[in-house]
Amino acid sequence: MTKDKIANQFKVLQADIVSRLEIIDGTAMFKSDAWDRVEGGGGITKIIEKGSVIEKGGVAFSAVHGPVSEVMKSQLGMKGDSFFATGVSIVLHPINPHVPIIHMNIRYFELDSGEYWFGGGIDLTPHYIVEEQARHFHIGLKKICDKYSVHFYDSFKKGADDYFFIPHRNETRGIGGIFFDHQNDKTSGITKDNLFDFCIELGTEFPNLYNEQVIQGKNKPFTEDELNWRNLRRGRYVEFNLVNDRGTKFGLLSGGRTESILMSLPANATWEYNKQIEENSKENATLKLLKKGIQWV
Amino acid sequence: MTKDKIANQFKVLQADIVSRLEIIDGTAMFKSDAWDRVEGGGGITKIIEKGSVIEKGGVAFSAVHGPVSEVMKSQLGMKGDSFFATGVSIVLHPINPHVPIIHMNIRYFELDSGEYWFGGGIDLTPHYIVEEQARHFHIGLKKICDKYSVHFYDSFKKGADDYFFIPHRNETRGIGGIFFDHQNDKTSGITKDNLFDFCIELGTEFPNLYNEQVIQGKNKPFTEDELNWRNLRRGRYVEFNLVNDRGTKFGLLSGGRTESILMSLPANATWEYNKQIEENSKENATLKLLKKGIQWV
Repeated sequence: MTKDKIANQFKVLQADIVSRLEIIDGTAMFKSDAWDRVEGGGGITKIIEKGSVIEKGGVAFSAVHGPVSEVMKSQLGMKGDSFFATGVSIVLHPINPHVPIIHMNIRYFELDSGEYWFGGGIDLTPHYIVEEQARHFHIGLKKICDKYSVHFYDSFKKGADDYFFIPHRNETRGIGGIFFDHQNDKTSGITKDNLFDFCIELGTEFPNLYNEQVIQGKNKPFTEDELNWRNLRRGRYVEFNLVNDRGTKFGLLSGGRTESILMSLPANATWEYNKQIEENSKENATLKLLKKGIQWV
Repeated sequence: MTKDKIANQFKVLQADIVSRLEIIDGTAMFKSDAWDRVEGGGGITKIIEKGSVIEKGGVAFSAVHGPVSEVMKSQLGMKGDSFFATGVSIVLHPINPHVPIIHMNIRYFELDSGEYWFGGGIDLTPHYIVEEQARHFHIGLKKICDKYSVHFYDSFKKGADDYFFIPHRNETRGIGGIFFDHQNDKTSGITKDNLFDFCIELGTEFPNLYNEQVIQGKNKPFTEDELNWRNLRRGRYVEFNLVNDRGTKFGLLSGGRTESILMSLPANATWEYNKQIEENSKENATLKLLKKGIQWV
């Protein structure tokens, strides 16, 4: 499994996901934006805006290489002279407050020293948590994980709880999902080929997992108050991405392509000082579930 | 000049600024939110929302003390066992795109070792830069600086250019202003009393400096396109505050009061993927001026 083959399959996966998301949206088409990286490599960022279901989102592919910079050494602890990295990352912000925001990322790193690892994750951020849908989402992820290792779901589910957490709000970003990093044949207990297959299967199942969420919510009517709540939750999403997300911080610090990194931001977001939520509201019911350690399965 | 006297005067200054901003706004009144810090001290956050001129903003006072934490040692290079810090900070987001966003901060630090310093700054972020108004703003700041030291304006103006800069966008936040840190009798060349007077004068002149900007813009009619541009520029303001602003990052990391720290965020902000600006537009004229090193005076 060479790095070129991995990058190539990731690119094919991007195209596949895009065509399936266009069917899920039903109206909007993705626009393609190819870019080169001065130090080596490049990517294709595919963007959807003003769809019927998805208000703003992107499916990004990149395959970059070059010398290991000081920032990479200090922030990622990367040991080596040159690196190769390829990945697919997705964030989708729906219009309807009853459809969740979703994020997916799979990535592969390789150093000239021969060291390699896979990382990635999928997590769901409902504006309003529907417990049955949250369970369904986690069951879907567990099913994929279990095909590859009995350890994956428990370990990666905890990884998501820990990673998709906003310390300054003391809340999780949403209902979590899975998050993993530094997985190779030594750390994961499965072969490189199997790890690669696991990542591809996550990507392939991603449109199905999201569609199950979309069909539950896309036709629900919504009020002005629910839109306002969606916009406040988008504000939290912006906070997580700009303050806490390691990928975003590393990307911006290391001179990555700003527009591709920040495609994860919503079309809009709002903030209200010290917003008070009524005790018996459905908004508060959601807030109470934004915590680590809930066993959805 | 004891720390208690400084804190007390800062608190008086907060009240003074608030009453003058209420006159400038003409409709909205600030709401007061007092809070305590578990480790010692507390603050009063005063918030204005949905005014005639100011859509969202705050004038915050705090005076906190306690042991120097690991984060303070590593991120601020603070040497000592315990610290005292007091300050006033302000961010105002106006409704009208022809009125600039403004920020002011003055702060005083003291360590048990006896070391002390003042820091602070004022910077202006017009959605549309009017060169004459930018000049006027800088002349006003220079006038205050020159009363205390012939070195202040040049040095602190450069400080603002460097500090209020968004590297991942390669643009300054606005037209800058002044920014200074670690000023004491050794580093500034003036006495502690004079440094304190300088900070108080900045605070006292702040409402006048802002009012001069407000009266030029508040009655100008604006279009939907200009509102959209304002919202995009607010997005950049959010990016600076959450990604680049050291005060925000330190505050959130060190367990500061989240709502008081994030009072700097606008009521809303928008993002568009890779937004293209027409070459001969007034938006582009503003973008061209978002760079370091412009000599406005």
